[in-house]
Amino acid sequence: MRLRPPKYIENLAPYRPGKPIEEVQREFGLKDVIKLASNENPLGPSPLAMEAVQKHLKESHRYPDATAHRLRKAVSQKERVSEADLLFGCGSDHVMDVLIRSYLSPGDQSVTSHAAFVAFRVNCNVQGVEVLEAPLLESGSFDLDAMLELIRANERVKLTYLANPNNPTGTHRDRKDVRKFLDAVRQVRGGTVLTIMDYAYWEYVTDSEIPEPQEILSDYRGSVVVLRTFSKVYGLGGMRVGYGAGDAALLEPCQRVRQPFSLNHPALVAAEAALHDQAFVDESLKVNAIGLVKWRYYLGESGIPFMPTQGNFLLINTQAGFGKSGNEVFELCLKSGVIFRPVGNYGMPDWLRVSVGTPAENERAIEVLKALRKAHAH
Amino acid sequence: MRLRPPKYIENLAPYRPGKPIEEVQREFGLKDVIKLASNENPLGPSPLAMEAVQKHLKESHRYPDATAHRLRKAVSQKERVSEADLLFGCGSDHVMDVLIRSYLSPGDQSVTSHAAFVAFRVNCNVQGVEVLEAPLLESGSFDLDAMLELIRANERVKLTYLANPNNPTGTHRDRKDVRKFLDAVRQVRGGTVLTIMDYAYWEYVTDSEIPEPQEILSDYRGSVVVLRTFSKVYGLGGMRVGYGAGDAALLEPCQRVRQPFSLNHPALVAAEAALHDQAFVDESLKVNAIGLVKWRYYLGESGIPFMPTQGNFLLINTQAGFGKSGNEVFELCLKSGVIFRPVGNYGMPDWLRVSVGTPAENERAIEVLKALRKAHAH
Repeated sequence: MRLRPPKYIENLAPYRPGKPIEEVQREFGLKDVIKLASNENPLGPSPLAMEAVQKHLKESHRYPDATAHRLRKAVSQKERVSEADLLFGCGSDHVMDVLIRSYLSPGDQSVTSHAAFVAFRVNCNVQGVEVLEAPLLESGSFDLDAMLELIRANERVKLTYLANPNNPTGTHRDRKDVRKFLDAVRQVRGGTVLTIMDYAYWEYVTDSEIPEPQEILSDYRGSVVVLRTFSKVYGLGGMRVGYGAGDAALLEPCQRVRQPFSLNHPALVAAEAALHDQAFVDESLKVNAIGLVKWRYYLGESGIPFMPTQGNFLLINTQAGFGKSGNEVFELCLKSGVIFRPVGNYGMPDWLRVSVGTPAENERAIEVLKALRKAHAH
Repeated sequence: MRLRPPKYIENLAPYRPGKPIEEVQREFGLKDVIKLASNENPLGPSPLAMEAVQKHLKESHRYPDATAHRLRKAVSQKERVSEADLLFGCGSDHVMDVLIRSYLSPGDQSVTSHAAFVAFRVNCNVQGVEVLEAPLLESGSFDLDAMLELIRANERVKLTYLANPNNPTGTHRDRKDVRKFLDAVRQVRGGTVLTIMDYAYWEYVTDSEIPEPQEILSDYRGSVVVLRTFSKVYGLGGMRVGYGAGDAALLEPCQRVRQPFSLNHPALVAAEAALHDQAFVDESLKVNAIGLVKWRYYLGESGIPFMPTQGNFLLINTQAGFGKSGNEVFELCLKSGVIFRPVGNYGMPDWLRVSVGTPAENERAIEVLKALRKAHAH
């Protein structure tokens, strides 16, 4: 006999990350592999961030600053959020985890949409929290009315999660609908349901109908926490830095729950410097915009359905486009050295997520897909 | 009204890290400040580790390797532990957290000693786990018999924690006593009580009566997890890398509970390279040994009581030595630019923890203490 984990831990499914380049190189004996699988910045990390890390490496024997003093100040200034309204974590998924641990207990429930970013479900399940999912609208967007119904109907629901735009769908909901939803949620059970709004892809957003994080923060203070990340447009996916913004009083228990040294020294230094790397952000946004035009043109021309996106990725329907599941297309493309991301774990076996790459990467990936269609048309 | 955290979160005390150098410089208008407060490596980070980080910085836009493939292999080879028997985390305190989350639920209990490393208590409390503490022996070592009694007497105890040597006391228990304890614990309630043995300071150990981690791992497989860290002798406190070693089946739920990307890219790269930096480790151990001789000589000569230590730090009795609390001595030394660590939070207000520094740092710190005694003798 030995100690057994609680039931909810025994049932926990592991998270499956995107396939690493090295692994594909090993498996298929390929040298030149491109990865359009994890919505990383194809230009690499922010150069200013890397410069700052180099400069401060010699301090790596000291415990990191548990208060994130300098990074906090920099984010506060840039994002017009007061310093006390910020909670830092190892990526925004870690911030989510800390929020859930601070407010929910085993047996509690939460509400989100089918095909919402999977980290929310994983983090809830680790805490023994059951996740109720509303189905997606036919458009691929979150059905906020259905979510609201679930929140109202289930007394143990304490948390709801909305990603705008969402990953992996890329879809979003407009200001009017979001506000209507948030207005309604804060009426439920005396305002005891917390909303997490995930803005991981905010920097890529071009549609002015998606409300600004600042608008949400000031109009829904105390009932919403907004998540942001340095993993996308700042090119720091390997550094693990994200934060939550919201009412300081709401975040206060979280500051005690989080491991004080969870962000390491290079992460703190890199994120602070990246905030000032506007040239890199501008270039990254340009490359993404050009890439999206290219991808949309190819997909439209080939009659491959895809969801509207406000991120740095596209969800395409391989069943309609190739007569194959997302996973089949993923596997076939691996052999040509291109890594995409199947989304069967989201209950979307007919779809494949494509991260936007550099112009050269997009071109090569599109050539591989074209060849695939040709080969299987014969 | 708003959402309230569970009671055990509301009662959570925040962790108080060592005072950073920058803060003391600001507060007291000092330029030259030394920190002997956090048991960091006074020589800085491993040079091989820093070289490796620099070389791999350009990959910082990619998500880190969630499996820690290369680091796992390197640790496995160096420490003679199989790869599957390793669980990595952001420092060994994070590994502790993951273990607790994987096996304990709110309302469960754990057992340790008074003045045990505080991260254990903090991590238990975050999970709503009550910590039962046996008093210290008069020697300052853990009272393993009293701990065993607590484990036997309390049915909800699922976990016990033993640091050998312990921080902040520096004290330890010998092989015979440790083995007797572990033998007894695995008989309790059919072997359903897990033991965490914290070996964070193992590399500094000179007493051959402290059992090797490998001995514990092979003889108590399935009932003990051994904690190790890169924060001390490898000089990577700012990188946040630690691991647990134990039976793969025991660690399996933990692999699903831990955030997959909690160790960032520089952390993985640095730790792997540091393992091979034997020259740096040797030099660090030498500097520590020389420093301990110096400190013991000064303390002995001045009649200031201190606990026996097997780490890179010493716990001294300021009440007996200076007629002042640890905190008072700490505050007075700050003004002279020397940061020590008071341990009132361990219920030891009469004591002060001193990390061993470089020869120059030790000399300066001792001069400051000498001056303090003189000033207050008049």
